Amino acid sequence: MGFHDHLQDVVRSVDGAVACTLMGMDGIEVDTHLTDELGLDLRALLVEFSTLFRSAKEAAEAHQAGGVAELSIQTERLLTVARVVSPEYFMVAALRPDGNFGKARYMLRVTAPKLAAEL
Amino acid sequence: MGFHDHLQDVVRSVDGAVACTLMGMDGIEVDTHLTDELGLDLRALLVEFSTLFRSAKEAAEAHQAGGVAELSIQTERLLTVARVVSPEYFMVAALRPDGNFGKARYMLRVTAPKLAAEL
Repeated sequence: MGFHDHLQDVVRSVDGAVACTLMGMDGIEVDTHLTDELGLDLRALLVEFSTLFRSAKEAAEAHQAGGVAELSIQTERLLTVARVVSPEYFMVAALRPDGNFGKARYMLRVTAPKLAAEL
Repeated sequence: MGFHDHLQDVVRSVDGAVACTLMGMDGIEVDTHLTDELGLDLRALLVEFSTLFRSAKEAAEAHQAGGVAELSIQTERLLTVARVVSPEYFMVAALRPDGNFGKARYMLRVTAPKLAAEL
């Protein structure tokens, strides 16, 4: 399985998921599986959220809280869960607000090492 | 019940919770119930994470994703869940990494309106 298959697998496995993306810590997208933008500019929003992932990483490291494993943001129209894949990459799943958050966290946890193995 | 009782109630009700704080969107702490710093400068870290909450809010609004209801960050040594209380305030619970994340989300969801009613 290539990157894209793994990303597609996350979207297919999680109720309410509309996108899953592999991204560099620099905010540059490596690959994305996207089924619905939900009327949002989802790609642009995911890039913005990657800045938050980096900021969380820096804040946690500066305060000896260790590396950031996961970050999630719930807005009125979107639920996103991001998980670190390697020091240089992370992945993000985007869900409708009523999507299965627990399953998304689980799928990212099991998929991240698979992506890491292919990087 | 005053602010502090509600914050204490969250810490008592959630396995692994060590702190709960009510904070202004400007990062200024209103009240905190803290039982253990986990060897971290937890207050400083929560202030840093409040910056992330604000950034998430701005990014979400700029991209029509609606208001940010919740933000969570899991690091190797700490799990934090933040939830909006009102346009000017939010609350954050800090847990040990093996703390009960689901219960923390639930407790913040039911406690936020109680705090809002007293602001």
